Amino acid sequence: MVLCKVLIQTRNMYCLPKCLSAVKNISRVARQNHRHIQTHAHGRSLSLTFAEHGDPVKVMEMRETELPVLKKDEVLIKMMAAPINPADINTIQGVYPIKPHLPAVAGNEGVGKVVDLGADASNLLLGDWVIPASAASGTWCTYMIQKEKDLLQVPSNLPLIDAAVLAVNPCTAYRLLADFEDLQPGDTVIQNGANSGVGLAVIQLAAQRGISTINIIRARPEGHDETVKDLLSYGATHVITEEFVRKPEMLALIKSIPKAKLALNCVGGKNSAELLKHLAKGGTMVTYGGMSKKPMMVPAGPLIFNDVKLRGFWMTSWNQKFQDKPERGELISIISTMISAGTLKHPPVRLVPLVQFKDALVRATEGFTKKQVLIMEE
Amino acid sequence: MVLCKVLIQTRNMYCLPKCLSAVKNISRVARQNHRHIQTHAHGRSLSLTFAEHGDPVKVMEMRETELPVLKKDEVLIKMMAAPINPADINTIQGVYPIKPHLPAVAGNEGVGKVVDLGADASNLLLGDWVIPASAASGTWCTYMIQKEKDLLQVPSNLPLIDAAVLAVNPCTAYRLLADFEDLQPGDTVIQNGANSGVGLAVIQLAAQRGISTINIIRARPEGHDETVKDLLSYGATHVITEEFVRKPEMLALIKSIPKAKLALNCVGGKNSAELLKHLAKGGTMVTYGGMSKKPMMVPAGPLIFNDVKLRGFWMTSWNQKFQDKPERGELISIISTMISAGTLKHPPVRLVPLVQFKDALVRATEGFTKKQVLIMEE
Repeated sequence: MVLCKVLIQTRNMYCLPKCLSAVKNISRVARQNHRHIQTHAHGRSLSLTFAEHGDPVKVMEMRETELPVLKKDEVLIKMMAAPINPADINTIQGVYPIKPHLPAVAGNEGVGKVVDLGADASNLLLGDWVIPASAASGTWCTYMIQKEKDLLQVPSNLPLIDAAVLAVNPCTAYRLLADFEDLQPGDTVIQNGANSGVGLAVIQLAAQRGISTINIIRARPEGHDETVKDLLSYGATHVITEEFVRKPEMLALIKSIPKAKLALNCVGGKNSAELLKHLAKGGTMVTYGGMSKKPMMVPAGPLIFNDVKLRGFWMTSWNQKFQDKPERGELISIISTMISAGTLKHPPVRLVPLVQFKDALVRATEGFTKKQVLIMEE
Repeated sequence: MVLCKVLIQTRNMYCLPKCLSAVKNISRVARQNHRHIQTHAHGRSLSLTFAEHGDPVKVMEMRETELPVLKKDEVLIKMMAAPINPADINTIQGVYPIKPHLPAVAGNEGVGKVVDLGADASNLLLGDWVIPASAASGTWCTYMIQKEKDLLQVPSNLPLIDAAVLAVNPCTAYRLLADFEDLQPGDTVIQNGANSGVGLAVIQLAAQRGISTINIIRARPEGHDETVKDLLSYGATHVITEEFVRKPEMLALIKSIPKAKLALNCVGGKNSAELLKHLAKGGTMVTYGGMSKKPMMVPAGPLIFNDVKLRGFWMTSWNQKFQDKPERGELISIISTMISAGTLKHPPVRLVPLVQFKDALVRATEGFTKKQVLIMEE
């Protein structure tokens, strides 16, 4: 425990790879020494907390709390990095179906390291890297206590940021491509919000499987060409704007490849009707977000005459369904392996020290920004 | 053939049951006499025809045409009754996916009697009652020639109007209740456009299976209470208006019975979002019409967080899929049996002689009217 604390204090968050290498080496020693030693934490944690729902920038505050003594089945985690996802913002605003008991620590995702184990925690070791198994776990803090059964281990040789953003977006993208249509090499997937965390993961996972992607993004006031170039570098087949979709040129593009079996929608509004228009007979549109905050406009024709299907997907719900099943661990393992192999890269991120959370929250609610990832310091 | 013609000429369409009884008796004689006799028709047919798409009242005209000599695999049918369905209107307007070669005889549904058989037509007998197996067959005429394989036999002891409107609405209702959710006694179905032909069939089929129905109708300027009473007499569990759905009282109603597993939508617009709101977790909304001509407004929430599914259904597509399979005949048989047993009644109809088709078309495009059924005379 002391060893880990020293180690963390010496870590410079702007020099992650080197430090993580050090963490890894020392944590191996810690694991060997502490295999069967459970110490109970008596420390303090800094936590980003909200006591009421509202504008995150206004209602979020940092609180310092005394860590309780670990129960037998609990684990103390030193948090290392946690992203700000749209679902976190919505949870704080009170418009998300997950309603934590208030006051609550925010954050549904992130990676930490085991630094203490309750007497009955028998699967994890000190130094193991873990992510929460369920949402609303309160990851925006320096230390977090969770029941061992509510944690999933991830390889501690993963790049820190990849591990921090592994559980939500890449896993969502994987399930979107796996659970709705039987996609084969040469098939087409069309998606809006293609520059989102899920969108970028979809592009990479599809490309690996030989599936073409038509990727719709908003026209950007600045740096549009760079964004297109970025998406192509991730493996996108076509990158087009929302405006292009309504132009006659779209028809030529659509005719040049097989019609999409699968459409992925995280925008809503009129945009979703345009996705439907380009879906093959019998195809499926899966909605996993509603970033425009507008209802989808769905004409009856494609449903009746083209037998298209509209479904929804929520990673939280999938996790609940498979919480005690091998599929859950297998998914994390598949994604981790791809990350290790360098075939799945995280979206562009902006690293922000935890204490600068207000700045990160402001950026997270603006358009056209990188994903904000909170980096914890002691 | 001569026998049949005499018979038809003596039939008074306003005295159907008596005449049909006569038809039946004589047709039995005809069947015995003509089992292996194929005569080739040389007569004339009056047909309601459109040479261009547009307002049905303007583009539809009656034409008299010479009947060609029957080919070996064809059958000559003396049409007896044919309804005006919304799909017929849309086909004439040119806004339906089925585009017959123009000029075309209108009408997708109706019942007729076999009055002549080609040399190779071996399954049907003279006097048999038949309905078209596929849409866009041109049923609004006095005589129709079809390939034998494109006809389905219905029992000739069915009431004429039931036989004329059997193929589209009751079959659609049956499939809606059979193909999307595993409905059990005690389950709930919610539907809009509940006073439509499909809606009334859904009410009756659901009631027979012990399934509760919440039936949404438009508030009527006149005779609203009578409409509600009518729907209850068909077996509706609850009949409510579109306005009621938005009132707090709706919540009390919804809480009094299990949440709907299945929602049936033939209206679209905002109305469909209201159906979705009252759908149980994992339930399905099936769209089979778009009478408001407005796209459905579908919020992302129910799809993502409640795992509801949106599907479409088109009887024409089902018929194509099962055209050579036993399910097709079984469906007609099931519906015919229910009609014979008196457990499935057709919606209120207004019988109109074929020559008065303009009046029928005007009424068919107005709201709050009975279904118009064309009755053929020689």
